[in-house]
Amino acid sequence: MQYQHNFNPTISDEDVFGEIVKEKDFIGYYNLVFGDTLKYKEYASHVVQKNIVVIGIGGSTLGTYAIYKFLKHSKKFSKKLYFLETTDPIDIKSKVENIDLNDTLFIVISKSGTTIETVSIFKYINSLVKCDKNNTVVITESDSKLNEYAKANDIQSFEIPKNVGGRFSVFSAVGLLPLAIVGMDIDGLLSGAKEVYDSFFDKKDVYDRVLKKARFFVEYKNRFNINVIFSYSSRLDGFNKWYIQLWGESLGKVDINSSRQGLTPIGIIGPIDQHSFLQLIVEGTRDKTVTVIKVEDFDNHLKIPPVKLEGLGELDYLDNIEFSSLINKQADATIESIHNLSDIPCDVITIDSVSEKSIASLMYEYELLTSICAKFMYINAYDQPGVEAGKVILKQKLESNK
Amino acid sequence: MQYQHNFNPTISDEDVFGEIVKEKDFIGYYNLVFGDTLKYKEYASHVVQKNIVVIGIGGSTLGTYAIYKFLKHSKKFSKKLYFLETTDPIDIKSKVENIDLNDTLFIVISKSGTTIETVSIFKYINSLVKCDKNNTVVITESDSKLNEYAKANDIQSFEIPKNVGGRFSVFSAVGLLPLAIVGMDIDGLLSGAKEVYDSFFDKKDVYDRVLKKARFFVEYKNRFNINVIFSYSSRLDGFNKWYIQLWGESLGKVDINSSRQGLTPIGIIGPIDQHSFLQLIVEGTRDKTVTVIKVEDFDNHLKIPPVKLEGLGELDYLDNIEFSSLINKQADATIESIHNLSDIPCDVITIDSVSEKSIASLMYEYELLTSICAKFMYINAYDQPGVEAGKVILKQKLESNK
Repeated sequence: MQYQHNFNPTISDEDVFGEIVKEKDFIGYYNLVFGDTLKYKEYASHVVQKNIVVIGIGGSTLGTYAIYKFLKHSKKFSKKLYFLETTDPIDIKSKVENIDLNDTLFIVISKSGTTIETVSIFKYINSLVKCDKNNTVVITESDSKLNEYAKANDIQSFEIPKNVGGRFSVFSAVGLLPLAIVGMDIDGLLSGAKEVYDSFFDKKDVYDRVLKKARFFVEYKNRFNINVIFSYSSRLDGFNKWYIQLWGESLGKVDINSSRQGLTPIGIIGPIDQHSFLQLIVEGTRDKTVTVIKVEDFDNHLKIPPVKLEGLGELDYLDNIEFSSLINKQADATIESIHNLSDIPCDVITIDSVSEKSIASLMYEYELLTSICAKFMYINAYDQPGVEAGKVILKQKLESNK
Repeated sequence: MQYQHNFNPTISDEDVFGEIVKEKDFIGYYNLVFGDTLKYKEYASHVVQKNIVVIGIGGSTLGTYAIYKFLKHSKKFSKKLYFLETTDPIDIKSKVENIDLNDTLFIVISKSGTTIETVSIFKYINSLVKCDKNNTVVITESDSKLNEYAKANDIQSFEIPKNVGGRFSVFSAVGLLPLAIVGMDIDGLLSGAKEVYDSFFDKKDVYDRVLKKARFFVEYKNRFNINVIFSYSSRLDGFNKWYIQLWGESLGKVDINSSRQGLTPIGIIGPIDQHSFLQLIVEGTRDKTVTVIKVEDFDNHLKIPPVKLEGLGELDYLDNIEFSSLINKQADATIESIHNLSDIPCDVITIDSVSEKSIASLMYEYELLTSICAKFMYINAYDQPGVEAGKVILKQKLESNK
């Protein structure tokens, strides 16, 4: 008997770990935790403008937005951060109209340096205000056209290393520069990521839980093709969006044996979507895993005041409960109602606090999880051929319009 | 031979239509298109406050937000609309701090009248500012506790009919009152919905396309268990969220034969997510249908100005292209790259303009589509037992805390 097959071999946790260790030499994001933050803090210390506008799309903005959204109301930051990323004309116009452009630093971010949306918006900004070295900074690959523009105009430029993909770039200049400028503790960010790095590569807690989770997700990928993140803080909304890009774009791939792979990310906000999407999870088809994210300590003691509302007395049991306790009890109720069904895979991540360190740990762990799922699936997490195809078609359409 | 079975019988388009016609007598949302808008316009004409704050969650806010988000920058509206819906303490606090509460009308919306989040937030607002008939209005069922509160305090109350579910309530007082107050053309909204109603019940275009689409979605529900809406306007973001609730909560159900059903909604924003999620659609597992939504006429001629940027000359083909043309070409490029693969079910909805009528037509058609899918699936689109279970657990947790 002769036999041919193209099934992927089973891969052990140990072998996946070995692959990741090897990959660390040529995939750049792993070692961003060792980055030098001095140059960002140095630049930040000289920024005089009150408004910081990031012009960029996808990987150039989502990670920064995730961190900023989570933390912006927890402390007072000295500057305001805005993002220009959509090509919707009404949106661009209304956003720009509400910002004092003469008191604005523009951070133009494009890894390739020729992103159509980014350059289009930057051209528009140039028609409204003079952009030069005093109000513009660029983040791009060293040999890109955008960097040529920066050099020609004596504009400072920070580098995105070639081997750091956009969606894995939040701990490079892409995230650290704008966040340092608004006053975030970027060393705190890196220390949060570093903690996860150490725990993983020293084969401690993170190693155990991330490998287990990735293996489960991949092993049951045909049964549970959807991975829901249920975040119990509305300020994790940006994290959800970042997760959706990271997961979707990294894991939607053709594997080494020409089979289509893909795990579909969904991000929902606990206290809101437990009034709606939860129905689908609880009673619908069993095609989802659920990861609940809680914040242990909101460091906020806002209470439901014991105000008496005639007619609504039956709800007075809410009096004096802290909102942070209410939201965490909402999370616990959701977890319990899912556990009670016992046929929905569910895990719970509790992050310590509303801090740079906590959000960075969470994000770095999800980057690792993504890389490891890709290893189990025999795909390349770091390219995006499907997106590139659309870009080519768009360019043709725009050029033929001339 | 004897034979027993519990398979659902095949149901014809004609029979589904018959069921919908029957249902119209007891499910309230269909006939909202015939609603009298005078009472909302009358109330709106007397509102003096500049800020309008809706306190509500899920079905009480999502539809209103969808319409407001889509239109708010297209004309100048006289008042600003805010939504308080999350229980995240940091979010509540920062939102409230940025609103002049002494120049605010509060619209408290809860169908049941005892929604924990809504009452909690309303209690908090009461501790900050005196709420009475001069700055508060209530929207609820006629026999609810919230209505008792309104009566006891001589506060005006508008009714949500018992037979109109929260997620189907946008064309009742829930949506029409706040939107009338900010200056929206609510008759335009109803005329958009009515056009779709007529076309469906007169068996014209809407009848054909909605039945065909629903039948396909249900027939292939196990192969394509995810229905992606890809909206090519960042201002359709609210519509996406509304769709996610409508679809998820209506169609995630156990059917008449105890089988779990469910179609999973995903809403993404074209010009942003074509840089990420598109990868998963194009190369990933074939488990998704894709509906692209385009806006035919943005009524906005903002152009990419012919600014010369040294080094970036190769992108000068963008010069003088309107952003509205760019965004629609982005949509066309996405559609083409999906069509080229020929194994991803894809349909395209082009709405006419950025207007009340257009967004209302779109929303009403999605309500019909939801009802019809439910008929094909032999489920009840209008209840939410899975959500209710979680509410009971939450109440227990909160009470036992005392």
